[in-house]
Amino acid sequence: MSESSGTPHSLLACGLPVPPPPLPAPDALARARLLVAPSLDPALVRELERITGRGAEPLTDVAPPPSDAPLLCVGDALPDALRTDRLLWFHSITAGTDRLLSSGPWPGPALLTRTVGRMGERMAQYVLGWMLAEAQSVPEFAEQHARAHWERLSSELVAGQTALIYGTGRIGAAVGRLLAACGVRTVGVGRTSRYGPEPGTDRVAPPGFDRVIGAAEDAGVLGEARWVISTLPLTGATEGFFGADRFAAVRGATFLNVGRGATVDMGALETALSDGRVRRAVLDVLPAEPAAPGDPVWKLPRTVITSHSSGITTDEDIAVDFAACWEDVTAGRRPGLTVDTARGY
Amino acid sequence: MSESSGTPHSLLACGLPVPPPPLPAPDALARARLLVAPSLDPALVRELERITGRGAEPLTDVAPPPSDAPLLCVGDALPDALRTDRLLWFHSITAGTDRLLSSGPWPGPALLTRTVGRMGERMAQYVLGWMLAEAQSVPEFAEQHARAHWERLSSELVAGQTALIYGTGRIGAAVGRLLAACGVRTVGVGRTSRYGPEPGTDRVAPPGFDRVIGAAEDAGVLGEARWVISTLPLTGATEGFFGADRFAAVRGATFLNVGRGATVDMGALETALSDGRVRRAVLDVLPAEPAAPGDPVWKLPRTVITSHSSGITTDEDIAVDFAACWEDVTAGRRPGLTVDTARGY
Repeated sequence: MSESSGTPHSLLACGLPVPPPPLPAPDALARARLLVAPSLDPALVRELERITGRGAEPLTDVAPPPSDAPLLCVGDALPDALRTDRLLWFHSITAGTDRLLSSGPWPGPALLTRTVGRMGERMAQYVLGWMLAEAQSVPEFAEQHARAHWERLSSELVAGQTALIYGTGRIGAAVGRLLAACGVRTVGVGRTSRYGPEPGTDRVAPPGFDRVIGAAEDAGVLGEARWVISTLPLTGATEGFFGADRFAAVRGATFLNVGRGATVDMGALETALSDGRVRRAVLDVLPAEPAAPGDPVWKLPRTVITSHSSGITTDEDIAVDFAACWEDVTAGRRPGLTVDTARGY
Repeated sequence: MSESSGTPHSLLACGLPVPPPPLPAPDALARARLLVAPSLDPALVRELERITGRGAEPLTDVAPPPSDAPLLCVGDALPDALRTDRLLWFHSITAGTDRLLSSGPWPGPALLTRTVGRMGERMAQYVLGWMLAEAQSVPEFAEQHARAHWERLSSELVAGQTALIYGTGRIGAAVGRLLAACGVRTVGVGRTSRYGPEPGTDRVAPPGFDRVIGAAEDAGVLGEARWVISTLPLTGATEGFFGADRFAAVRGATFLNVGRGATVDMGALETALSDGRVRRAVLDVLPAEPAAPGDPVWKLPRTVITSHSSGITTDEDIAVDFAACWEDVTAGRRPGLTVDTARGY
């Protein structure tokens, strides 16, 4: 298993559209050497060898032996020595590619694809699981049980409540669909009100959302929401996105973050928890992970921290997603799992 | 709020069909006196008075003053003195009517209706909440948090797992529909394989179920199930239904009971928990409630007991369901919330 996170969504991209790089040429792909992260399980490596029809070599900091062969890499980090025009294609074993893109310049023409696996489903079940745990008083019943105490506790029906879901891509939509099955009213927050500025057209919401609004229009809904859920990736534009202004508009919602920790201004969250505007927080991601025992995040009121585990990808996910990308590329199609390296997701 | 439980389902009814009693005649209904349980909230009583267009009197053990007026009662218990032919209609403020029916003979022609409210939705969210709490390691993460410990814990995707749901009525189907939204394979267990003995016809499952089987055919599926969920009411035929034989067929499933406690042989459950065949148990109902601090149920391994709270009905539920029954009866229609007093649900 390997960690992964991040979200294909549409929030706050900046700059103008950049034309996508060309796909790897068939002759270059045929000659490419396969380099895989040394951490990969041998069974997964054998599967990658089978898919590509060539033997794997380790993807390490050491520059590969002199050769002009193009490189096809599978892993979670790209050594600086390989950030050259020789890089033909990098397949990320995680969904989040922010560390890969921020740790050095991306060699322009190289294709970057990623593993999403069943992350949408997994993150949706994580989000709903923690929502229902709160609504059904799971911790309180466990505490009563521990002292052999039988007492009625109220439960909350989430049907009819409002959830504000930041990120309207695959993961946000998977969360929305599952919450909708529980009768929750789902409002997605995208980069802009994507469905056009004309009256009426901005209400054609994608599956999973009753409605989609732009990031600048969320203040009113933040005040109505019982649940505020972030699936945002980390980009230059989302760092500190959940800050004092945004939390000031919250009126008793529980905040759940399955996106990236650095999208949250932790000081602003602490203030909002302390004054009660944020009811509870469930944080699967933190600005700095893992949290050390002395980290002040453990002292946040009414908060549970989990270990970046909501959107785990398995070796099977990596093999399946890489195989799909391989099939697309060899058929001359751009893979659906391509990362726009300018946007960062 | 008032307790309620029990299930409209189709399991193990015994005996031949009994023709339903006639509906209350319009002139009898017009003359009927409205008796309401003294425990009801004054606002609810005013609503019942508004619906029926008459004043309410207390429903007590004291026989009403001499009068031949028919009686329309709303409450959760029927004093023996009122178990006479004068009883025209009793509306139960709870869904479970087993105590009402077992505490004295039912006066044959009287209509019995009940409050279901949003019980199906509530119980479904209870069941899914406890399933996801287990699958997402909610208690384990809470424990790690308490000692400021950050460590990856595995989570389980419930998609693709099998749930066996006993009771295929409104509540069982509500549970099935919600679990299906999480990708769970749902197998309902009804009284018989209701869709006919002919090959093929027994696979036309109602919404919420991938498949419905009869109670005598469950051994194989018990062995495949990750979740065994009971929504069974208590009738003569379901007492001790979950006994040693049934638990012996379980292979690692978690058992959740939102039906009635006495449908479970607690000794057999304890044995199955001790030998690991039952992975965990979540019991919202017990043979004897409330459980006293010294009750041995608190010592069952890997078990959580909640306080008969999964299917709470609110005063609003009572008013809405009674109003619907009133509308049906006054229009000469049999209410959908009518209880078959011979079957007991």
